[in-house]
This record gives sequence, C-alpha cells and structure tokens, in this order.
Amino acid sequence: MLLVDGKIAEGAAATAYGWVQSIREQKTITFVILMENREPLQLVIKDKRLARKVKVHASIMVKGRVAMTERAPRGYEIHVEEISVLNKPRKIPPFDIMAKEEPSIDVRLDYRPVDLRRPSSMAVFKIRARALQLFREYLVNNGFIEVNTPKIIATASEGGSALFPVMYYDRQAFLAQSPQLYKEELTMAFERVFEIGPIFRAEQSRTMKHLSEATSLDVEAAFLSNEEIMDLIEGMVKHVIKGLNSEPQLFAALKAKPPALPERFPRFTYSEIIEKLKGLGEDIAFGDDLTQKSLEEFGNMAGGFYFITEWPAKLKPFYIMPKENGLTSSFDLMYMGLELASGGQRIHDPVMLRKSIKEHGLPVSSFKFHITPYYYGMPPHGGFGLGVDRFIMVLTDRKNIREVVLYPRDLRRLVP
Amino acid sequence: MLLVDGKIAEGAAATAYGWVQSIREQKTITFVILMENREPLQLVIKDKRLARKVKVHASIMVKGRVAMTERAPRGYEIHVEEISVLNKPRKIPPFDIMAKEEPSIDVRLDYRPVDLRRPSSMAVFKIRARALQLFREYLVNNGFIEVNTPKIIATASEGGSALFPVMYYDRQAFLAQSPQLYKEELTMAFERVFEIGPIFRAEQSRTMKHLSEATSLDVEAAFLSNEEIMDLIEGMVKHVIKGLNSEPQLFAALKAKPPALPERFPRFTYSEIIEKLKGLGEDIAFGDDLTQKSLEEFGNMAGGFYFITEWPAKLKPFYIMPKENGLTSSFDLMYMGLELASGGQRIHDPVMLRKSIKEHGLPVSSFKFHITPYYYGMPPHGGFGLGVDRFIMVLTDRKNIREVVLYPRDLRRLVP
Repeated sequence: MLLVDGKIAEGAAATAYGWVQSIREQKTITFVILMENREPLQLVIKDKRLARKVKVHASIMVKGRVAMTERAPRGYEIHVEEISVLNKPRKIPPFDIMAKEEPSIDVRLDYRPVDLRRPSSMAVFKIRARALQLFREYLVNNGFIEVNTPKIIATASEGGSALFPVMYYDRQAFLAQSPQLYKEELTMAFERVFEIGPIFRAEQSRTMKHLSEATSLDVEAAFLSNEEIMDLIEGMVKHVIKGLNSEPQLFAALKAKPPALPERFPRFTYSEIIEKLKGLGEDIAFGDDLTQKSLEEFGNMAGGFYFITEWPAKLKPFYIMPKENGLTSSFDLMYMGLELASGGQRIHDPVMLRKSIKEHGLPVSSFKFHITPYYYGMPPHGGFGLGVDRFIMVLTDRKNIREVVLYPRDLRRLVP
Repeated sequence: MLLVDGKIAEGAAATAYGWVQSIREQKTITFVILMENREPLQLVIKDKRLARKVKVHASIMVKGRVAMTERAPRGYEIHVEEISVLNKPRKIPPFDIMAKEEPSIDVRLDYRPVDLRRPSSMAVFKIRARALQLFREYLVNNGFIEVNTPKIIATASEGGSALFPVMYYDRQAFLAQSPQLYKEELTMAFERVFEIGPIFRAEQSRTMKHLSEATSLDVEAAFLSNEEIMDLIEGMVKHVIKGLNSEPQLFAALKAKPPALPERFPRFTYSEIIEKLKGLGEDIAFGDDLTQKSLEEFGNMAGGFYFITEWPAKLKPFYIMPKENGLTSSFDLMYMGLELASGGQRIHDPVMLRKSIKEHGLPVSSFKFHITPYYYGMPPHGGFGLGVDRFIMVLTDRKNIREVVLYPRDLRRLVP
C-alpha cells in the first residue's frame, strides 16, 4: 500500500507498506526493493542506523519523500525518513527468493507463501489472473453469461471412473468431474453460458500434466455448429494471447513470452492423424485412442496450436453428437501434443440421448433428472471444457502443472 | 443468436435462433416473442400456415426482414418468411412459464432448466452474473488479484464441525468451508487477494438462508485496519448497487429494485446491541451469541445495511485479532437482521497464532503448515468473507436462498 500526499511528484510526502525483497548496501546509502502490492518500489535510506532495521522478508512501513528518478523501476523512489517494522522474519528462510537457481518443486510447495515471493512464481500467478480476466472479457463480449453449478453431485457426469466420493449427510455423493450436464441444461434458457470453477478427478498416477483438483473453463452455446464452436475457442485463445502480448512486463521475470499465433489453427481429423502415424511406422489402427506418445509425436510435427476433429464415437462420452461412419462432431484443442480443451456438438434429442446413455453402458435411471428438460424444446447446442491450468502452463512455458496452481492436489499432496 | 445482413435497419435480411416464450394470435397476424440470447425479440408472422409451426418452448430458427417499430421490445421486429423447428416440446410443460402465479420452489427446482425460462427466474441470474462482474471490477480497481485455492483440504479451517468428509485416495479429507487460511497466507506475497468460489457446510437444518454448497466472495488485504476493511466492503457494496441501479431493465421482471444506500453504513458495537436488546426486555447478556430472533429484532430497528463490530473473542474463530477486554477487531455486515459478511483483522504473529489455536481447543499439529509461513514476515492483514447468494437475495428481494442458486444443495436436495 502506497499513500502519497497529492500527486506523485518530487518532494511529496509518502507512506509505503510492503515486504522487503532485496537490500543493496553502498558506502553511505542503502537501496531497498520494497514489494508494494506486487510491484517493486525503490527505497533509499541514507541513515545507516535506520537501514539496519530492514531485513529481507520483513513487512515494514516507511515514511519519506518522493524523488523522481529514471534509475528506479517506477520512475521514482522514496527517500526514507522513518521505518516501522510490522513483522520481522523469525527463522532463516528455506531458500533465497532472489537466487538464480530454483528450489525443488516440493520445497517450493511446502513453503508456498514464501515461494510466491520469488519473482518468477509471482509472475506466473499475475499472468494467470490476467488470463482469466481476458477469458471472461471475451466471453461476455460474445454474449455469454457466467454461472455457478454444484460441485457435489449424485451421478457421474462422464460415466463413473476417477470420482472422489463425498459423505453427503447420510448418503454417498461425488465431487463433480465437470459441469458438463448442468451447462448443457442451462443453454435451454440462457443460450450462452460459461463457468470457471474447480473440477475433481481421482487421477491414479502422478504426472506433470494432471492434478486431482483443477480449474476448468466450461463454455456451452446453443445453435452453434461444431466448426463455429472451434472458431469460438480459437477466437478466445487469440484474444487472451493478444491481450497478454500487449503487457510484456508481466513476462519479464519468467524469460518467457506467450506462444506464437498462426493465422488460423490447423484442423486435422482423427483419421488423418492415424494415417500419418501409421506412415511413421506406429502400430496403430482406426479406433485406438491416441496415447501421450502418439500425441507428442504428432504434436511435434504440427507445432503450436491445432485441433483434432471427428473422433470415433467410442472414444467420446455419451453426450457427444454422432455422425455417419461411427465418427462424431467433436474436437480436441491441442498445443504441441498437450490436450488443452475438448468439445463438440451435443445430442439435444431426448430419445437419442437416452439411447446413447444406454449404449455407453450407463444406467439411464441415474440420468433421469438430466434427460427430463430435454423434452421441453432443448436447443441444439455444443461447447467445450478448457483446462485452465494447462493453458497457463503453455502461456508461461512451465513444464509442471504444479507451478501454475497455488496449492496443488495430487495422489500424494493434500497439504498445505 | 441473431444474424443480420449489415446493420439492423428497415428491410435488412435477418436470421434469428431462439426459443419461443409466448404466442399472441390476432385475426391475420401472429406475434411471437422469441427469446434470443436472454432478450425478447418480436417476430411477426402473417402466414397462418407458417404460424402453426410455432409452439411455446420450441427451439426455432426463422428467416425474415427487419422492420423498425416502437411497439417491439427492441425497437424492431422480424417479419418472418421462413421457419425451421430445431427441437419441439415433446411433453406438456410442468407449469406455464408466463403465468402470474409462481409454482412451488420444489417443482421449480425439479424442472430447473424450464423454470429458468420464467422471466423472474431469468432476471435473478442475470442480476447475479452482473453483480459478480461489479464485485470483480471494484476489487481489481482497488489493486486486488483473483486467486483459486483448493476445495479439498486436510484440516478444518474454522475448527471442525459441519464438514463434509471426502475419500481422498486412501485418506480422509474434507471439503473446504472457506478459503480462510489460504487467503491469509497469500497476503504475504500478493498483499491484496480475492476469490469467488464454492464453499461447503454440512448444515444440519433446512432454512431459507442456508445451503450445503454456497458461493463465497473472500477478500483479504495486508496493512488495513479493521475500520479500513469495513470501508472497503462498504465501498464494494455501494459500487455493486450503484452499478445495478444504472441498469433498471434488469429488475423489470422482478418488480423489485436494489436496496437503498445510506450515506454511510451505521456501525454498532456488539455491546451496544446487547444493551439495546436488554432494554427491550430480552433475556440476554454480554458473551451470548446473537440468535436469529435477536438479529432480526435489532435489524428491524436498524433497517438496511449496518455493521456489528467488536465481537467477544469467544464468539469468533482463532484467527481473529483480540483486543482488550475479551473483545476483537471484527465485524459482521448485516442487512435487516441477515448476516451478509463476516470479517476483521487477523493475528499475524506466529506465536500468538499458535496460542490462539490452542486456546480455541484445536490441535496445533493440524495447523503446522499454516503457521509455518508466519515465521517469515507475514504482514498484518485482515479481510472478510461475503455470502454471495445471500447478497443476491437482498438485491433481488427473494426470501428463499434456493431462488438465487441454480442447483441448490441442502439436507434433502442433491439432484438435479
């Protein structure tokens, strides 16, 4: 917090609150970088006795005068006349927040609030927050309304595996793997909806790309074709990346920049990719799921962002609209072999929906409440779910999804 | 979805997608209100054979020409030349969406997607989405960064009762009752944070004001005094209500308007209220919690928005900063006897925090990961949690919290 008497100008009286990121001693002067609401503020202390009160990590309040200068990060610095230490560090920090070398991810997560004082960690979460603003901006500008759907559910929306059971009073319930069924139902009245919220999957392995609790951006719209939904997500991704490109200072501490944007994201059918992989000598046939290895092999050829379209019905959930030849109106949005989003057109006919649930081996009775509204003129609709955390990995060029989630949850980690 | 060739002007070719809200037959003309992305669009059908294709609730696509006219809700209508029925209702709707009389809340919730086609239901969720935008706008403009904290946690943040247990792989975990501990920790690096997300409480009774799953707006800021935090929340509430007041059309279908704003929200101490209630003959003493009956009795006197400040320590959780005389730097924001938000200054000294956890009868070992960062210069901080659903009840003048949540969860209701 920075309070200045009047405007920021030479000699103005200022009070600044923040935490000490670094201290640089010169013969007669001490320079301090105070982090004031996530931005560096340079303090100049000319009194050595006063300077001795300042320690890295301490939360302090200083009073002084503004001095305009090009050498300070903000174009001005504070010449300090008075210092109050509000809370000092009581232990030796687990790592040096300004060191070039990065501590291990596990140490960083054990001391997450301290880790977030490292410039690159803080940058990741500033970019994340800004990206979420840009997502919302794009969707609201395109007529979408934000909704909140329940996270405690009675029935698995996608079929059943990988659910966390919850003891709900005297009943068993589950944590929602996605807002899929709710967002579809809501297109009936609202036409265009989106939700940004937590989703839960009991992942049975520990990878760099999966967490037990993730943030999902779910979008659903009535009346759009599969191609129009791809255009929508492509437009959204471009909006976010262009917005971030206009704020390069956000990326300074990361030595990274947002990925390059092609004129148009290439669209490959599932079948094309199978043929391509066969041609490369892979032992793969139509109907096989694309393994991580296959996705990466193709991803390295495709580069950057691209779509995989027209997946076989048996590889997609019950609500996806079938096409001829056992294919579906569906797509995955990929970045270099990493799946970022999955979507497509949905079934809107109640009879077809009921049949598809059966064919996917699911109990129709569990989906009674979901099928019910479809009898009252459910519009044709489609949409997608985008893994926000994975998208932030791509934006910030991080290799481990744990770096872009404040307090990640996995098979082993439940604290802090 | 509405697609117009060029600008909306007399004679322009138009294609509109939407669902049919109402049909009004005149001798030779049929007027249809098509809900197109949550807004009414008037269709004029002069061909009776064509008009017969249109049924209430059907999702349709029409082609025609724009006609500018004052009598239509948008200042223009579409003269229809072609109609495609995309999905027709297959059953008789459970209630008439345009009826004056409202169906019971349980029927409405059983058919929620259909209920949301009722103008007053739709209005509630448009206001809710707009209010959340205005919350975010205010907080971002005041230097706050939005964060996402985990909903699966190892330890109760507030002490233990009313938690939903989750089977987390082979361990027991819980659903978070609030992001309290995480948001406090995050002030250490980020200074000002907020989160809008789900919270979970196993409420053992069914009331008009409680749900098992609710949406919470959690705000936390370093370096603010208790009074400054009250100023912040007051400023935020005023921002949201002023923003909504500038869009009266949002409230048209509700026959309600946002509550009046006093110049300044009155601030009453807990002790003042106890004295006042004693004076009214209530059997109450310092140290007693304020029952719903007491809150309402005082609320009716106070009217509108007000604060209750300086609660006794034993009525507040362990993290609240104590003051002299067993009081605390704390407040509740009330509206006419309804608690909307609770907040205050927090303990930032690790030794005092550990002591307070013990004094509240909680196991220090369970809070080890939370106390750890406090040893590295945690700033003085404070904040509040605001019940978003309750706030929307006040904004929209609804008496049952189930009306302002899309798919509410309570002791009895887990579907849809």
